Order: sequence, then structure tokens, then C-alpha cells
Amino acid sequence: MGRLMGAEIAQQPAVLEAQRTQCLDQIRGVAAQVARAAPRFVVLAGRGTSDHAALYAKYLLECRLGLPCGLASLSTLTGYHAQPDFRGVLWVVVSQSGGSPDALESTLAAAAAGALTLAVTNDPSSPLAQAANLHIDIAAGTELAVAATKTFTASLQALWLFVDAWAGGDATAVQPVPEAMQQVIEADLASTVADRYRFVERLITVGRGYSYPTAREAALKLMETSYLSAHAFSGADLMHGPLAMIDQDRPVLVFASGGVGARLLGPVLERLAERGADVCLIGDAVVGEASRPVIQLPLPALLSEELAPLVQVVPAQQLARQLALARHLDPDRPRGLRKVTQTR
Amino acid sequence: MGRLMGAEIAQQPAVLEAQRTQCLDQIRGVAAQVARAAPRFVVLAGRGTSDHAALYAKYLLECRLGLPCGLASLSTLTGYHAQPDFRGVLWVVVSQSGGSPDALESTLAAAAAGALTLAVTNDPSSPLAQAANLHIDIAAGTELAVAATKTFTASLQALWLFVDAWAGGDATAVQPVPEAMQQVIEADLASTVADRYRFVERLITVGRGYSYPTAREAALKLMETSYLSAHAFSGADLMHGPLAMIDQDRPVLVFASGGVGARLLGPVLERLAERGADVCLIGDAVVGEASRPVIQLPLPALLSEELAPLVQVVPAQQLARQLALARHLDPDRPRGLRKVTQTR
Repeated sequence: MGRLMGAEIAQQPAVLEAQRTQCLDQIRGVAAQVARAAPRFVVLAGRGTSDHAALYAKYLLECRLGLPCGLASLSTLTGYHAQPDFRGVLWVVVSQSGGSPDALESTLAAAAAGALTLAVTNDPSSPLAQAANLHIDIAAGTELAVAATKTFTASLQALWLFVDAWAGGDATAVQPVPEAMQQVIEADLASTVADRYRFVERLITVGRGYSYPTAREAALKLMETSYLSAHAFSGADLMHGPLAMIDQDRPVLVFASGGVGARLLGPVLERLAERGADVCLIGDAVVGEASRPVIQLPLPALLSEELAPLVQVVPAQQLARQLALARHLDPDRPRGLRKVTQTR
Repeated sequence: MGRLMGAEIAQQPAVLEAQRTQCLDQIRGVAAQVARAAPRFVVLAGRGTSDHAALYAKYLLECRLGLPCGLASLSTLTGYHAQPDFRGVLWVVVSQSGGSPDALESTLAAAAAGALTLAVTNDPSSPLAQAANLHIDIAAGTELAVAATKTFTASLQALWLFVDAWAGGDATAVQPVPEAMQQVIEADLASTVADRYRFVERLITVGRGYSYPTAREAALKLMETSYLSAHAFSGADLMHGPLAMIDQDRPVLVFASGGVGARLLGPVLERLAERGADVCLIGDAVVGEASRPVIQLPLPALLSEELAPLVQVVPAQQLARQLALARHLDPDRPRGLRKVTQTR
């Protein structure tokens, strides 16, 4: 059990290295076409893991390119049949399989409404890749485990390469990623805490800014493989109400890798400490005495905050797999799920 | 304990009636100014309960006006100091107090970036109301309980009146809302299930389309007053992974009041039934034998799907208050929270 997910976690450095060397020209070509179209607004779409990749791209597009962005509410297109005016809009849809009916239907509706459509998938022959005006192949190879791991980080890097090229960057910043990821995989930080969380039923994950999509993805992995209630919050949203449910029996995983996100999480860590929460800090953020976490899992400080999400999710992937195995569950085949989810 | 929250829940029909009769002209004036500016995109901002009101407005704007919309990631403006190009953008910020630092800072940044800014608050003298180009007063009266109730439904109605006026509507559809809400308050549906959920620690709420913001708000009320782990999902997102954690011991509250949302939730209810989930359906949706919920709390079918959210949250507000009292907690003063949350 768990061999597929374990193998796919381990493949990630090679997948990212190969993607950068083999797909960069194609991604640059797509970025050049998008830049020529000069969209004024970006609408991003995805479900589950792909939604988290889309959210990462939203931060990148807003911070690097200053573009107003929104995440699509797919039902307005597929259910309510809204008639939007999408002239000047770039529609970016992320789907590992390229086979989800609502991703395809909403993309066709977006194109009909005037949007330039870009699909980011792991299958160039998929209906979605064929239907969109532009396509980026994340080239992660076939993913067999139901819980997505390598397609998540491959989507993040492909989106980073796309935004970097659009912004006129030279992609060099991404070169250390495979080496940093290899270090994190080998460090196997999750093994130091998996035993501690063996009997946990409810858990909170927290991020802010670039690390917020990581918190979302970590919670999803834990839900789908270990069946525990894992609930992700941005640090700011946590303070607006949900903080009340936190006490000393509530494990909290905080993702903070330095930079602005870690600074904004400072007051959140203080409030969590006041409430006696059992905090595990994943990342190399430096925190004060008053908000010291119970545990810190340091990640190598090789990457900028913008690129840290490509690596900081790895301990969460490993933890999800190890917790599932400790609970005698098969992380490769969660109950009730299929690899391609059919939603409308 | 709980008298403030109880009183404010009960005030809602009168608040909505007074808002419609007293604020409609002002809201129409704001809508006319926005219509003249003819924005091409709408970016919405809010935290906690106000975020859920903003999400409701997103569905309305997309479906009624066909405008591309996005929810703001505030940290890109307040933390990463992105330099966005917001020409042609309408910025709508929702904040009950009008006093949250990040709402103010991001609104000033949005205006500096070229957006037309509109604040929707319960305090016309607040810094946010003063700083925005345009202001809508939700006129809900002072809210004393920490958990927002009447300011939520007053925000929803004010946003509905705004979008309706912008779309050229005559606001008549909203007239039955106070009467429908009064019926729901008096029916006190929550009292029939509060005992059943007395010892629940983990709960799922589900909505789709217009009822998704309700599911989010219901989960927040339960977290902040009863301290239970309440996790909201759109029906489609639930199918992409989190479904695996659902079994017969997991209570699920599904909000479905007919129309498109209820239809899209049909397959979700089937999958939940297959997994043996303990489903309570809130609303008058008609469901097949194969997906029959354990409990159904019917709401009066007086309102269109678009307006149902103004009323369908009431049983959740009542349930949150009653569950807190049953657990010897004071829903008026949740631990660790203040009425105005200071986040950046």
C-alpha cells in the first residue's frame, strides 16, 4: 500500500528538472502569445488540487504582473448559464487529467464569451487541451495514485514558468528547485511527526500569501488519504472567527518560509500560542519567544518565498501518506474516489 | 447567555424591511454612479462573514450582469505591495464595522491603482466608509453579539438591491423576504435537531451556486460559537477528494432550495447517501429515493433561488446559538474573539 504515492512523491525533482529543460520553449511561446493579446483580467479555474495550483498562479499574476485576477465559480457558467462579457479576459483552467466535464464546459463557455483560453494539463490529447486556444503540458508523466502529488508541483512550476516568461524573466530562479526538493524528500521530515499525529481526528492548516495554497493542498491530501478533518485557513481568515475553536488539543500545521507571508503570520502565531494551540511550523521562518511553536520542521532556505510553495508541500505529502499507512488505509486508493472526478 | 445573538437573529425581518424602505434610494443612486462608470471587472473583498456576503455578490454579478469577478487576496495589496492596474475595475469591499485595517489599506491601494471603490458597511462614519469613493449603509443597527447575524443578511440584501438596481430591476422581488424570514424564525427548525448534534465534534456543510455562501457562513457560525470543526464545501469541491473522509458518523448539512443549485447537488446527495453520510437537508429541494436525507428541514418556498440565501442561513444561525448554549458556551462572547478583528 502507498507504493504509487511514495514513488510519485519521489519522482518530483526529476519531473521538475525535465519540465524546465524540455517544456520551457513551449511555455515561452504560449506566454508570448498571451502577452501579445494583452489581457486586462485573468479568471482562473480548477477543482481540488488544481484549484490550489490556480490560487498559487493568482498570487503570482497579481504580484508579478499587477493583473486583477479572480477564481471562477464554475457553476455560474455550467449551471446558471451566465452570459458573461469576457472580452479582454485570459481564462486559465488547470486540470491534471483534462477530462473533467465542468472544466471543459466552462472553458468552451469562456471562449464563446470572448476570453482567450489557456489549459494547463498533464495530457495534451485530452478534450480540455484540445478545446482551449492555448495549452501548456505539465509533462509530469502518468500519475497512478488517486491523491495528486507530482502533478501538483509540476502545475505550480509550469504556472511559475509561464508567469515568469510573460513578465520577461529568464527562468533562472527556478533552477535550484529540483535540488532543494530532493533535499526535502530525503530529509523525510514527516517521519518525525507522523507518530505524534497517529490518533488525530481534527487538524488545522494555516498559510498566508504564497503559502496559503500550500495549506489548502496539505489539508486536502490529509483528508483524502487519512480521512481526518483537515481544515485550511489563511492566517487572516483564521482570526475572523475560527480562532475560537482552537485550544490546546488542536494540532495546527503552519506553513511559513520567510518573507512577507511569514511576517504576516507573526501575529497569528502569537494568538495561537496564547490559545495554547499545538503548533507545528513547517518552514524556516524565525519566530519570537512568545509564539514559539511546539515543533518546527525546517526547510532548506534555498528558494525565494515565491518559489517556496513548490517545495514546502512535500512534507505534507509525506505526512498524508505515512498517516494513512499508520491507520491501515491505502493512500493510493482512497475510498469513494476515482482519479478523474466527474462534476458539472 | 446568548440573549444578544438571539435578539439580533429575531431583528432580521425588521432590519431588512427598514433597509428596503429607507435605503433603496441611496442604493439606487450608488448603482447609477457605478453604471455610468461602466466597470469591466469587479474585485470583491471581505473577511469572515463579510467574505461570504462578497461571495454571494460574486454569483449575483456574474449571473445578473455577466461581469467577470474575483475575490481579492488582500495580502497581495497589503503585504506584497503589488502594483496592480485597476483601471476599469470596480472594487467592492464589505466590512460590517468598516474598521478592519486590511480592508481600509487594500481599498486605498485599489483606488490608487485606478479602481472605483465601493464600501458596504454598517457604519457610515467608519474610516472605510469615508475612504471609499462610494458607500452603501446596510443600516442594520448596532450589532452587539460577536457572531454576526443581522449584519450578514443585511449585507446580502443591500448587495442584492445594488445589483438589481444596476441591472435595471425594480426591487420588487425582495419584498417577500421579511415575511419569509419571519416564518423561518418562528418555525425554529434548529430546535428539532440541536439535541441530535449536542455531542458532534466534526461537521460538514455543503452548498452549490447561490447556496454555497450560506454553507460557508453556517460553518463559520458553528465554529465561532460552538467551537466544533465545521468545514464548508461546494458540492463539486467535495467530490474532488474530501468525500473520502465522509462516513456514517459524519453529519452533513446540505443547503438546497430548489433551482439550479439543488439540481447540481443531486449527484452529491447520491454520493453522500452511498457513503452512508448522516445528511440533514435544509431547504425545500425535492430529492429522489436513492439520495434521501436522514432529516429534511423544509424552508417556505416563497423566494427565488437567488434570494433564498437571505433566509436559508437563519436555521444555521439558530443552530449555532442553541448548540453553544447546550454546550454551556456563551454565543454572544466566543473565547478569543473581538468584534472588530485587526488583521493586515
